[in-house]
Amino acid sequence: MDEKETGRLEAFSDGVFAVAITLLVLNIKVPEPDKLLSDANLWKALFTQWPTLAAFVTSFFTIGIMWLNHHRVFTLIKRTDTSLIMINLVLLLIIVFIPVPTELLAEYLLRFDLHTAAIIYAGTFLLMASAFNILWRYASYQGRLLGKHVNMHLVRSINRQFAFGPLLYLICFGLAWFNTPVSLFFGLALALFFAVPGSSLRLLMKREEITDRENNKNDR
Amino acid sequence: MDEKETGRLEAFSDGVFAVAITLLVLNIKVPEPDKLLSDANLWKALFTQWPTLAAFVTSFFTIGIMWLNHHRVFTLIKRTDTSLIMINLVLLLIIVFIPVPTELLAEYLLRFDLHTAAIIYAGTFLLMASAFNILWRYASYQGRLLGKHVNMHLVRSINRQFAFGPLLYLICFGLAWFNTPVSLFFGLALALFFAVPGSSLRLLMKREEITDRENNKNDR
Amino acid sequence: MDEKETGRLEAFSDGVFAVAITLLVLNIKVPEPDKLLSDANLWKALFTQWPTLAAFVTSFFTIGIMWLNHHRVFTLIKRTDTSLIMINLVLLLIIVFIPVPTELLAEYLLRFDLHTAAIIYAGTFLLMASAFNILWRYASYQGRLLGKHVNMHLVRSINRQFAFGPLLYLICFGLAWFNTPVSLFFGLALALFFAVPGSSLRLLMKREEITDRENNKNDR
Amino acid sequence: MDEKETGRLEAFSDGVFAVAITLLVLNIKVPEPDKLLSDANLWKALFTQWPTLAAFVTSFFTIGIMWLNHHRVFTLIKRTDTSLIMINLVLLLIIVFIPVPTELLAEYLLRFDLHTAAIIYAGTFLLMASAFNILWRYASYQGRLLGKHVNMHLVRSINRQFAFGPLLYLICFGLAWFNTPVSLFFGLALALFFAVPGSSLRLLMKREEITDRENNKNDR
Repeated sequence: MDEKETGRLEAFSDGVFAVAITLLVLNIKVPEPDKLLSDANLWKALFTQWPTLAAFVTSFFTIGIMWLNHHRVFTLIKRTDTSLIMINLVLLLIIVFIPVPTELLAEYLLRFDLHTAAIIYAGTFLLMASAFNILWRYASYQGRLLGKHVNMHLVRSINRQFAFGPLLYLICFGLAWFNTPVSLFFGLALALFFAVPGSSLRLLMKREEITDRENNKNDR
Repeated sequence: MDEKETGRLEAFSDGVFAVAITLLVLNIKVPEPDKLLSDANLWKALFTQWPTLAAFVTSFFTIGIMWLNHHRVFTLIKRTDTSLIMINLVLLLIIVFIPVPTELLAEYLLRFDLHTAAIIYAGTFLLMASAFNILWRYASYQGRLLGKHVNMHLVRSINRQFAFGPLLYLICFGLAWFNTPVSLFFGLALALFFAVPGSSLRLLMKREEITDRENNKNDR
Repeated sequence: MDEKETGRLEAFSDGVFAVAITLLVLNIKVPEPDKLLSDANLWKALFTQWPTLAAFVTSFFTIGIMWLNHHRVFTLIKRTDTSLIMINLVLLLIIVFIPVPTELLAEYLLRFDLHTAAIIYAGTFLLMASAFNILWRYASYQGRLLGKHVNMHLVRSINRQFAFGPLLYLICFGLAWFNTPVSLFFGLALALFFAVPGSSLRLLMKREEITDRENNKNDR
Repeated sequence: MDEKETGRLEAFSDGVFAVAITLLVLNIKVPEPDKLLSDANLWKALFTQWPTLAAFVTSFFTIGIMWLNHHRVFTLIKRTDTSLIMINLVLLLIIVFIPVPTELLAEYLLRFDLHTAAIIYAGTFLLMASAFNILWRYASYQGRLLGKHVNMHLVRSINRQFAFGPLLYLICFGLAWFNTPVSLFFGLALALFFAVPGSSLRLLMKREEITDRENNKNDR
């Protein structure tokens, strides 16, 4: 029963992640052919779109790796309650909103004197990282919604790892007030960075799995 | 066999919910950079979009919590028939339609003398709440599509709880004729309110689960 | 192994159905507030959109009930092969295309002298019904991709029922050459009609299920 | 545990494939009724859209059959790791991007002197085929992420088959520099071609399945 509940929450979240990540492409506008008379002009028109592409790629990996970590965390979370569902909804609200600051950033990336777009962009990522942190901390506090025999050592080590998330996005947010391209590049680097620690996290999760299984045996 | 049927109905519904909730973001338009020459102007342009954001957030939570209750109800509904599928399709039709009144409301939220947009917005929610009620009542009438050993006490208590849905949205609809922002705020409050009763509902569902399991044991 | 294959084919198809049915809403345009100075004008502007709504509702139920029948047929189809997947892709191509004729029809519904839009709309439905028929006939021919102990009596009775699909859509297509609104109304009636026969179809399917289960017992 | 992980990766990928394939339809624009006064004009306006339709159909089958091969490969891949998830994200990034070159190609298909659009279109497919190849080779290298008793003979035969993918798309890419329509037609032919070899591939996979099952028996 519990598993089935998490199952449908994950399925719904997966759906929202998948749609949001795909909708990002709607921001990329194709230059109209009437104004371009040659291949050279088309190449030029396309190259001027590189800020759109840079914002698209950064947001794509940010959402994609947010999904990945969401997925990882839900291998440990076994039960749900109303609060978890609400925190998850807030996280999804931020994910769904990402195409808006992405478009904004793309339009203002080359206006080096203006930083509003970058601030909103990095601010959205900061909110996302915070919501994800709250989700994990709520679920893992005293093992509330985790498996029965969860290793609290593991939980604390994940807590330490995850605490970096909002912190690093806070730096990204700070950078946005001074330099838009650097902040964007830092955001992309963060997305890729959060994909990697998984290897150690998963090692821990696998160890946890084994302990869990052994405990289950002992229970019988 | 029965479960698999409900399974694919739920999967399809989840998909529609996920796409509809994500499409809401398409209503949010980014101000064009050509007309704005400074950060101050961009902030101003963004702040004038707060009605769009308010409508977006309200619709997001309304659809999200409608999904949540849809999901809850389908932990009790075990079988499907053509009528249930049709009622569910009507419910999904209303869900899919929500981005339209959302955009309408956003455009007219600050025209305090005009109420058409708010009436259509609240009216759509009223229809949604009614369709959901009909779905539950159809499925639960004499335990038609529920599990075999369902506790009719529980069904009646859910019935009482769910009867508030259309009633409260009727008030929201009534408010729309007089004051658009109050009606929108009331709609958001309703969405959050319908997330909460779940805790008691789920307690009941869990008790039901146990009874169900015990009955199954006795059958064998 | 076989089941898992059908499982993912169904999941992908469900996803496409869910997105296509939700994208229909993008056809509905909200009247711009600048041109409307009163509630009366807004109501009027909205009422002139009824052809868009009529086309939206018809296409919504057509896709929704196509999904329903797709789902029903795949409770009988147990295996897949390349041809089935290709026929299914062609069916999905037509489903995905539906928003285009829907928008076209909405724009031309009230031009009683012009029938091109209605012809394309009804023609798309005719193609859809034909592709679905081919899918079923390919899968069921000599029980090719069905369960092992499938009742060929049942298959033939479904064949007879399904033969009406393209035939009735052919009538709808014929009507489109003369009268657009009548053709649209007939299309909506067809969608609802194809939801109903399910009850008898499912009775047959259930009987089949039981036979299947008994045969399985005998095999052991 | 491992299977569940692949399960959610596949579900997320299926979602992205389903949304991307459906978003292709947004490229098809409906001619505005105000400029057309007769059925003959509408037919003419629609016929001038055949490049859009040709690009739509080609991209639809390319994504659809990419999904099919993704699905086939994941019947052999049983485990995931961070690298596989990242390669898969890159593949999805390319899939999600496809509507952009599709729209570009549609607009430039009849400008026989301009080849930029076709080069970008075929180049995107070349990247897609390469990413898919890398995904498979990474997963299958020394049986890294495959089932325990996987037949390395089979893996090598798939390797040989898959090596054609990037090669053939390289030819398609080369053609794009000289003749846009030929390149598009070749791209469609490739999509259909990659659907077919599946029959032999699946024969191999089935044989593999049986070996796998027998090995499992011997283990016990």
